[in-house]
Amino acid sequence: MVIDKCGESLITSGMPIGIFDSGVGGLTVVRAMEEHLPNENLVYFGDTARYPYGTRSPEIVTEFALQNAGLLTSFGIKLLIVACNTASSVAIPILQKNIDVPLIGVILPGAVDAADSTKNGKIGVIATQGTVKSNAYKTAIHNRNSDVSVFSKACPLFVALATEGFSGDIVQRIAHYYLDELIQEGIDTLVLGCTHYPLLKKDIQEVVGDGVNLIDSADATVKVVKEYLHSNNLINSSCNKLPDKFIVSDSPENFMEIGSNFLKHRINNVNLIRIR
Amino acid sequence: MVIDKCGESLITSGMPIGIFDSGVGGLTVVRAMEEHLPNENLVYFGDTARYPYGTRSPEIVTEFALQNAGLLTSFGIKLLIVACNTASSVAIPILQKNIDVPLIGVILPGAVDAADSTKNGKIGVIATQGTVKSNAYKTAIHNRNSDVSVFSKACPLFVALATEGFSGDIVQRIAHYYLDELIQEGIDTLVLGCTHYPLLKKDIQEVVGDGVNLIDSADATVKVVKEYLHSNNLINSSCNKLPDKFIVSDSPENFMEIGSNFLKHRINNVNLIRIR
Repeated sequence: MVIDKCGESLITSGMPIGIFDSGVGGLTVVRAMEEHLPNENLVYFGDTARYPYGTRSPEIVTEFALQNAGLLTSFGIKLLIVACNTASSVAIPILQKNIDVPLIGVILPGAVDAADSTKNGKIGVIATQGTVKSNAYKTAIHNRNSDVSVFSKACPLFVALATEGFSGDIVQRIAHYYLDELIQEGIDTLVLGCTHYPLLKKDIQEVVGDGVNLIDSADATVKVVKEYLHSNNLINSSCNKLPDKFIVSDSPENFMEIGSNFLKHRINNVNLIRIR
Repeated sequence: MVIDKCGESLITSGMPIGIFDSGVGGLTVVRAMEEHLPNENLVYFGDTARYPYGTRSPEIVTEFALQNAGLLTSFGIKLLIVACNTASSVAIPILQKNIDVPLIGVILPGAVDAADSTKNGKIGVIATQGTVKSNAYKTAIHNRNSDVSVFSKACPLFVALATEGFSGDIVQRIAHYYLDELIQEGIDTLVLGCTHYPLLKKDIQEVVGDGVNLIDSADATVKVVKEYLHSNNLINSSCNKLPDKFIVSDSPENFMEIGSNFLKHRINNVNLIRIR
């Protein structure tokens, strides 16, 4: 927590919220923020020069996460959202030690939502290889409810399918390839444990059937953010909502184009910075 | 060219050949080297911390290529092979200016092969977005034969499919999605303009039909390397063939596992270095 010389918190409700992801995926969190907390000022960083994180080692992802968090805290933020499941799964404890701002990752909210909403105690988790290997969802779900069974599956092609805007038959065939074993386990709840996956939600729902409840980690996270801001008196009550600020480490034009798919509205201005 | 004080070349036939790619893809070039030039000593660098290059800007790919080339020249190499189509498509002129070793990229050999072997003058090129945007294949093919038509198509999902070891039905459906328009143009030659694509060769051939000649840029490049070494008296004639040296910038275990698919034999030792 940032405090001044008199021990008072320097964090005020008018400050922006920082959000980072490896690339465009975290925009699903921005979309949920715009829906549920439309008055908050946002600074988003997409690390497009080093995307994707899901196939990288925990050491490198942690190093990247520290750099990204350092960049965003320089904007004087009141809260940092780690909108990348892979980074959330390996880097939260080190970020908490090193960053002087409260932070919320995307794993815990989705895990709690899943543990609380399953009826038959069988939860599926789909995510990147990095997130699955970390066991972060399994651990967080079991911390909430040790009686449930968790079935995890890495779906490495889903990120590319979402980024390229695929839908329909091809997505559903690949979804069957990955998800049939989870369906056979009889899951009633499936965590979309990667911020890219909500873009494939319709096709995934089609494949797993209506009986399976999909947990969108972006929505779950924004619910937790809202509770945090409320209980700490940090909701932005000023009328001064600024346009969201977007920053990337490579190819701003690409980000604008693909990002508009994620946000369902145009992104007009993206700044390029050097972070490597 | 590296020369000593008397103006003599310091490059000798016993020196190793350096090869770099964004990740495992360039191992298709290593495989072709092992087949056609089995006595050469190889040092391979896979930039797995910053893979993939195909979606990144020319500026960043050029910066990465310069760093990778600098790393490999420190091993005292006689030749540098840029085994990444994206890097070859944007960085060759700058590498030639800055690196003191002869170098061969993968674009020109495949382009020449295609221009020389088409019968009906209709050539397809499939590659990453970066390579397609650069127009490097189109330019190189037209420099060889200005009368042919070139139809280019970026196939961004192919890298993930190859890396994840997919084959069969799913690959063929996605191949149809990308390639049907090239087939309709009546191409008789298709350049696999990304070092990952040869792993999908069987399925791609099935989709385009036996009438279309597939040009593997790895094979084409190694033919050019062989000619270069012969005409410069640089074929390694010593009996001292050392094991190939593999270096990566992240996740050596992953590289060993996926790399074995590419090489069709086990990789036993991979060194990790820091290049960011």
